[in-house]
Amino acid sequence: MMLTIAYDGTAYHGFQKQASGAPTIEGTLNEVLSRVFKEDIEVIGASRTDTGVHAYGNLAVFDTHARIEASKLPYALNRVLPPDIRVLCGEEVPQGFHPRKCDTIKTYEYHIYSAPFELPQKRLYSYWTYNSFDIEKMRRAAGYLIGEHDFTSFCSTGSSSPSKIRTIYSIEIENESVFEDEETEAGNAPGDIVIRISGNGFLYNMVRIIAGTLMEAGRGRIAPEKVKDILDARDREAAGPTAPAKGLTLIGYEFLQTF
Amino acid sequence: MMLTIAYDGTAYHGFQKQASGAPTIEGTLNEVLSRVFKEDIEVIGASRTDTGVHAYGNLAVFDTHARIEASKLPYALNRVLPPDIRVLCGEEVPQGFHPRKCDTIKTYEYHIYSAPFELPQKRLYSYWTYNSFDIEKMRRAAGYLIGEHDFTSFCSTGSSSPSKIRTIYSIEIENESVFEDEETEAGNAPGDIVIRISGNGFLYNMVRIIAGTLMEAGRGRIAPEKVKDILDARDREAAGPTAPAKGLTLIGYEFLQTF
Repeated sequence: MMLTIAYDGTAYHGFQKQASGAPTIEGTLNEVLSRVFKEDIEVIGASRTDTGVHAYGNLAVFDTHARIEASKLPYALNRVLPPDIRVLCGEEVPQGFHPRKCDTIKTYEYHIYSAPFELPQKRLYSYWTYNSFDIEKMRRAAGYLIGEHDFTSFCSTGSSSPSKIRTIYSIEIENESVFEDEETEAGNAPGDIVIRISGNGFLYNMVRIIAGTLMEAGRGRIAPEKVKDILDARDREAAGPTAPAKGLTLIGYEFLQTF
Repeated sequence: MMLTIAYDGTAYHGFQKQASGAPTIEGTLNEVLSRVFKEDIEVIGASRTDTGVHAYGNLAVFDTHARIEASKLPYALNRVLPPDIRVLCGEEVPQGFHPRKCDTIKTYEYHIYSAPFELPQKRLYSYWTYNSFDIEKMRRAAGYLIGEHDFTSFCSTGSSSPSKIRTIYSIEIENESVFEDEETEAGNAPGDIVIRISGNGFLYNMVRIIAGTLMEAGRGRIAPEKVKDILDARDREAAGPTAPAKGLTLIGYEFLQTF
């Protein structure tokens, strides 16, 4: 079975089960599924999101002896899951299906709230900054990342991936004004900046380092063209800072193969 | 001084100070202002929002002997306030200014998330329902509420307002689809329905009863024309249910007078 999972990551130490017993998405799913199906169930997650990262469409795959229609799974599980985790969809997948070994397009969004003061209602899901950004510069900087590249510079040290080559299909950057008539001292309206990025896979912290680097470009602290040099350097020190986890949401997966 | 206040009402027993000492917005503001200015300060709020109701632009007025530029107040206070309350603006107002005794346009939004399953990221700020709505019917029903009316039918019993006559200037209802390609079993895309309502004042629970009644119209459980009869009945029993608090946000005030 494969579940599509949405969660608010605020209260969790990431997706992956922790030896410490700290609350995680995977641990909570295993506990609830085992209880509902009265057998030991361990899910395999498509993305092992970090502490504080959110999801609209992570995937969790598991085997069960129980006879239940896949489409009924959301109803059965949402009754038992805590309100910050929801199953949006249940599907049959072949026995032994592994969601991290499929060709997929993964999409993430990074949300920035640019305004003089934080809005309480956005504090858990956006990175707030009083800095303002030149969206055109961010878009030009992002252009250098599209395609197949060695993303060593955009990968936190400690990553276990043997290859640092990934393909980014698209990066869209939008600015939605929040209050129509207001202007900040810097002259820009308070706004939600959304960086939407799709690729065949992402290295450890890659989306957050890309977001941190595009913000540097948007503030005029690095030239957009500099992103090409950052890629070529193959050195984490060359790129911008890792943007905070709470601004990141895993939007979902698109499968490039049938199963 | 007058502060524009945004808050996430989730953790508070409404705006108004409680004898029980339960946490409230007013109580928290009084405590923080008194601490920062080292004198006893009691704010007067423009809207005494209920438990769980949110705000982008409530107003809190107070007098102080302290010499501080009004524009510096957000910086001084946000450092000390909890993260679910933020001061967005500070302004000078005349001594004795009372925000509930001014001619203003008040605007509220009621947020409904219509989808087969709740999204964790919306659970604190929207009312989730798997029901789907005919937006055109909701708009037609809302049309009967525009203008000056006796809103007794849309006021919870126990209201202390001597007059139940209020003027609604506008009710806008928008449906923003959340996921582009998805359809629910009912045939409608999951969506955020936003009811935006402006008036010269609102009775106790009035916006939530209007939202509850418009949802009844949108589901086809009452005819839109029925809203005229509901107004005429001057009876709370005639209208629909009071929609849950967490979907309601006080957007802000526009002053119709100078001060």
